[in-house]
Amino acid sequence: MKNTFGQHLAVTVFGESHGAAIGAVLDGLCPGMPVDEENIRRMLKLRQPGGAISTARQEADLFEIVSGAVDGIATGTPLTILIRNQDIKSGDYEALRTRMRPGHADYPAQCKYHGYQDTRGGGHFSGRITAPLVAAGAICHSALQAKGIFIGTHISRCAGIPDRGFDDLQADIQTLENALFPVLDASASEKMQQAILNAKADGDSVGGVLETAVVGLPAGVGEPWFDSFESMLSHILFSVPAVKGVEFGDGFALADMRGSEANDPLRYCDGAVIATSNHGGGIGGGITSGMPVVFRCAIKPTPSIAKSQKTVDILRKENADLEIKGRHDPAIVHRARIVIDAVTAIAVYDMLAGRFGTDYFAKED
Amino acid sequence: MKNTFGQHLAVTVFGESHGAAIGAVLDGLCPGMPVDEENIRRMLKLRQPGGAISTARQEADLFEIVSGAVDGIATGTPLTILIRNQDIKSGDYEALRTRMRPGHADYPAQCKYHGYQDTRGGGHFSGRITAPLVAAGAICHSALQAKGIFIGTHISRCAGIPDRGFDDLQADIQTLENALFPVLDASASEKMQQAILNAKADGDSVGGVLETAVVGLPAGVGEPWFDSFESMLSHILFSVPAVKGVEFGDGFALADMRGSEANDPLRYCDGAVIATSNHGGGIGGGITSGMPVVFRCAIKPTPSIAKSQKTVDILRKENADLEIKGRHDPAIVHRARIVIDAVTAIAVYDMLAGRFGTDYFAKED
Amino acid sequence: MKNTFGQHLAVTVFGESHGAAIGAVLDGLCPGMPVDEENIRRMLKLRQPGGAISTARQEADLFEIVSGAVDGIATGTPLTILIRNQDIKSGDYEALRTRMRPGHADYPAQCKYHGYQDTRGGGHFSGRITAPLVAAGAICHSALQAKGIFIGTHISRCAGIPDRGFDDLQADIQTLENALFPVLDASASEKMQQAILNAKADGDSVGGVLETAVVGLPAGVGEPWFDSFESMLSHILFSVPAVKGVEFGDGFALADMRGSEANDPLRYCDGAVIATSNHGGGIGGGITSGMPVVFRCAIKPTPSIAKSQKTVDILRKENADLEIKGRHDPAIVHRARIVIDAVTAIAVYDMLAGRFGTDYFAKED
Amino acid sequence: MKNTFGQHLAVTVFGESHGAAIGAVLDGLCPGMPVDEENIRRMLKLRQPGGAISTARQEADLFEIVSGAVDGIATGTPLTILIRNQDIKSGDYEALRTRMRPGHADYPAQCKYHGYQDTRGGGHFSGRITAPLVAAGAICHSALQAKGIFIGTHISRCAGIPDRGFDDLQADIQTLENALFPVLDASASEKMQQAILNAKADGDSVGGVLETAVVGLPAGVGEPWFDSFESMLSHILFSVPAVKGVEFGDGFALADMRGSEANDPLRYCDGAVIATSNHGGGIGGGITSGMPVVFRCAIKPTPSIAKSQKTVDILRKENADLEIKGRHDPAIVHRARIVIDAVTAIAVYDMLAGRFGTDYFAKED
Repeated sequence: MKNTFGQHLAVTVFGESHGAAIGAVLDGLCPGMPVDEENIRRMLKLRQPGGAISTARQEADLFEIVSGAVDGIATGTPLTILIRNQDIKSGDYEALRTRMRPGHADYPAQCKYHGYQDTRGGGHFSGRITAPLVAAGAICHSALQAKGIFIGTHISRCAGIPDRGFDDLQADIQTLENALFPVLDASASEKMQQAILNAKADGDSVGGVLETAVVGLPAGVGEPWFDSFESMLSHILFSVPAVKGVEFGDGFALADMRGSEANDPLRYCDGAVIATSNHGGGIGGGITSGMPVVFRCAIKPTPSIAKSQKTVDILRKENADLEIKGRHDPAIVHRARIVIDAVTAIAVYDMLAGRFGTDYFAKED
Repeated sequence: MKNTFGQHLAVTVFGESHGAAIGAVLDGLCPGMPVDEENIRRMLKLRQPGGAISTARQEADLFEIVSGAVDGIATGTPLTILIRNQDIKSGDYEALRTRMRPGHADYPAQCKYHGYQDTRGGGHFSGRITAPLVAAGAICHSALQAKGIFIGTHISRCAGIPDRGFDDLQADIQTLENALFPVLDASASEKMQQAILNAKADGDSVGGVLETAVVGLPAGVGEPWFDSFESMLSHILFSVPAVKGVEFGDGFALADMRGSEANDPLRYCDGAVIATSNHGGGIGGGITSGMPVVFRCAIKPTPSIAKSQKTVDILRKENADLEIKGRHDPAIVHRARIVIDAVTAIAVYDMLAGRFGTDYFAKED
Repeated sequence: MKNTFGQHLAVTVFGESHGAAIGAVLDGLCPGMPVDEENIRRMLKLRQPGGAISTARQEADLFEIVSGAVDGIATGTPLTILIRNQDIKSGDYEALRTRMRPGHADYPAQCKYHGYQDTRGGGHFSGRITAPLVAAGAICHSALQAKGIFIGTHISRCAGIPDRGFDDLQADIQTLENALFPVLDASASEKMQQAILNAKADGDSVGGVLETAVVGLPAGVGEPWFDSFESMLSHILFSVPAVKGVEFGDGFALADMRGSEANDPLRYCDGAVIATSNHGGGIGGGITSGMPVVFRCAIKPTPSIAKSQKTVDILRKENADLEIKGRHDPAIVHRARIVIDAVTAIAVYDMLAGRFGTDYFAKED
Repeated sequence: MKNTFGQHLAVTVFGESHGAAIGAVLDGLCPGMPVDEENIRRMLKLRQPGGAISTARQEADLFEIVSGAVDGIATGTPLTILIRNQDIKSGDYEALRTRMRPGHADYPAQCKYHGYQDTRGGGHFSGRITAPLVAAGAICHSALQAKGIFIGTHISRCAGIPDRGFDDLQADIQTLENALFPVLDASASEKMQQAILNAKADGDSVGGVLETAVVGLPAGVGEPWFDSFESMLSHILFSVPAVKGVEFGDGFALADMRGSEANDPLRYCDGAVIATSNHGGGIGGGITSGMPVVFRCAIKPTPSIAKSQKTVDILRKENADLEIKGRHDPAIVHRARIVIDAVTAIAVYDMLAGRFGTDYFAKED
């Protein structure tokens, strides 16, 4: 379905970085569900660049809900979020039409769209499109919270510097909620930001790893084979630009364990079945177990760097050197985390709506 | 779509480990395309257990194509592969109906299906279902080869022991083609197999990492957002039991690189655009670049182990200890590789058919 | 999705008239739901030819459920129905490989499949494929009945002879349940069967109109635009061979009414909202109103006739005359009705599962 | 997928009659394809009310393409059409919030959305939403024309008055192109318009039948079972408000024919296979035959009438009488024809893109 995700809640994104507008359509929301614009603003703000560690491009990200809600309540018909583009300096990018930026979508897009793609500012491939995606996810995020389901993401590693792991999940998710640089260990935060500034000084950029926890999910959500919980979630996670790896539970570390270490023992606890460890990340056989779902995403370093790079000029059909001027981020890992939260909320909403029906998120529950 | 994958070629799997039959339906094959039963047999053989490092359960995996092909040629209508179950010893598993095996789908399935799931031998969650999946993938695999697209997977790590990386891709893929234990460095192979036998002696199991390369793919395949090449591929990869992590190109290692290291420089080479490194794994912006697609899957250790484990008995609603008798594998990483090859072939076929139309795989091309 | 229908319950059909087997996969059934094999047999029997007014081909239609059910209870994983083909006389059809039968799929299929389609007995286009479709629908049909939803179809016109309309719906549906020639007015039945025999004597065939009622549906099912109740239902109705028209409520007759006649007045009746007429066929704005859903399907005359017909020979690339030997039906309208019942049950099940979630059909309700 | 149609070209509609904006997203357009705004305006104009036979509501239907096109050329990424609502008089409808209009979606929508639906002006169920649908279809319509595929629709019956049938299809389609009241026989046109005015004078409304032809389609498009050409087309046709019946070729009249009349004889004509009659409407076995595709839609009379009607007040839970003030059409059949053209263009584009790949509509062809 290309730019549409979800079988029960279908989310469609559209727009280009320097076009008239970007936006998203959410089809399948529960009628009567609140549309919390405050939460949309909160999440959009966490996505925006800020301070020395981000690009200088500033977009107010003023969104308008042009359909699907009346007086802050979802009607159940398609809800459309529209964000007009404002701070456009296309001149910066003009030279990039023919010189393919290494690490960017430029060359693959050229092959797919035969040169008809909008190349200004990355066009449809721009991180700008994550703004409506975050707004869409924010609506789902509020709905999940109303059902006692909470999502939180921190930078578990950046420029090689580790954060501490999740501990008290509820408290940690609370801590992260409004953090512009979402790290659990304050000392790690300082070191990471310094490393980002160092990279910036070098005309370079850094990447990182984001770790996400979802608590409060009921057991029994997901499908055995192709639509496993991991399949659905990784599908949308890998649609986020810069994500190059996804692992659930202990992920790649499981490859080096023995079965006796990796298997999570089960026990009765106050009448409920729990696991006494969570190496599997809350998912077994593609289906949730009721334990927290935990996963990590590898975020590659921002491809736009000031350093000179080797590339090709597809108009002149010759090799060329490229120095990218314009505005860009020495790191996006801290901004990407809210995109991960948002797309996670979308995927989880979709799976719950499929499992329990359209009206699952009605406020009376 | 639960047990169906693909928008252009739709593959549906069905069956339970100890039911009457398992199978797959492929809908959307190119009419006139050969259905190479020899390749199906070859790939099924690589999936079968063999030797001391595997389960003692032996299934001939005799398949029958009951629709969609005439005289070894695909008609273009749904092709159905049927495999009858034969070597069934349900007695071994009877005790497991109520004692949930840690690391297995038992408890999540119990929550989803309310106890109505077929629990014999893992039922629909059994690795058995990968047999028709491999057969389905084998048909796609042959079709891709006819278009010059080759897929190969090796065990890049097992029980902590590394194989060498891919070097000459065409040659390496050739080497792996019929290897029962698919490793590029013979000395690593011996060490890995010894480690597996050691785990078996301990009543335990091991996991590993599989690395896959796809060569010959045209540039420009995949979609910018939700149906990125990585999204579609990870969707089906995570449907393979035991896969807990997927990374493309340098994956999680990219998180620790700087942009100047991670970006793949582009150059003209004999008139074609190539990248002089492949950290991105042949995909940019979710779309293929024409470079080899390279990815790795984390395979967790086999959950069925002989050692005593702590679990719950859901009938008696009490804690219990569990010793799994029956037949099981101390490692499945070597068998899983052909499943990875197969599902990769399915996803790639689907994306190419979407991009270029139904008749893309006609033999006259 | 080609041969798969449904977003929540996905039904896939496969097979060819003279291949090894035909079948269907149902994915998304409610775990714990009974699989009533008796009802499958009953409905398959109504689809089978019988007496002088049908083809002489006799298939026992012995089906086997090879996955997805244990002891007559759906597990919730894909349920596969397999029917082996037995009474095959391919010789009858050999001459038809190159002479396209007028009114059949032969020529369009030739264009689509480039001659690779299985042409024996109509191959995948054969009415034979409706056997697994009926079996699949029978499972849904039982599930709907358990929720108080009943479906019934009668021949409202055949060879120009009208049956009486529906009157007491519950009683009429009961009457039709096991009728081999499903007509409400016994005198009409005799006339219709005589007309069919007359056509047979002329080496010709007749068509008819089938009228269906669905009672007991809750209000509020269906979507406003593309997935309107009428859209989903017509989608699957037009997949039934020979259906060339579908109308809901008064359908084409509404075109000649005035608004004041066509609008169904609403009234309170014992606290519930009802309509005092049903010109709209129980659907408004694409959504059920709680009134009985009523629709009609036009069934064209069986295209296989004994009379000589003008056609082309695509091998010799010349005009040709064609006399179809083999076995064929002078009318299929009486047999088609159970196919209409079956596909209606599938579509309704799918929409209810989407609206109310996977477990809607659990028996405890 | 609720408000999204199409597997290869996905069209999503959104908006409410009295909300901020209505619109459509087209995902999957061929990169490089012209986006002919002139044709969008032409088709939107034919949808607009005009003269005494229509509603007095006037909307300029000024559309803006906010994404997916650069300089009038489709980029291949989602193309979004936005139409702001302007001429809003919600006061007219306020009384209708609780009194359900007979023949409208009011009561079914109330049941589905539990009262959260936007009721102003019919909300998401309003015919207003056909404006972006027509704009979306206009883009496809131009693309089809560039491939030699033409679509035309006339009022074949209105208020019981028949138009002549299609004769010279190319010429007839040409004639209809810009006709505000699309009828082939001028004398029929006058009679129909007089009948509409008569109904209006009575505070009533009329319906009609629309007949559509599609010429230039290649043979071999469509799928054998669930995604038959008729299934896909009827799916989208029944999403158009007021459509209550769809028939292909001779449709319901086929029910009264004999096989020897209904079967279309095939002949070679200048080396090509043609049918010497077209009772089947250009489709056999669900697949196009290369003959013109012909179908008819029953359009029910406009449900909004001035006459007093019996209904319920759901707030007071009592029976009530209703006189609809506001502005409304005594007939919409003449305006609906361009909606039929538009949705036909969308469905045909989708099927061709699936059959021949994304780039089928590239201008170089």
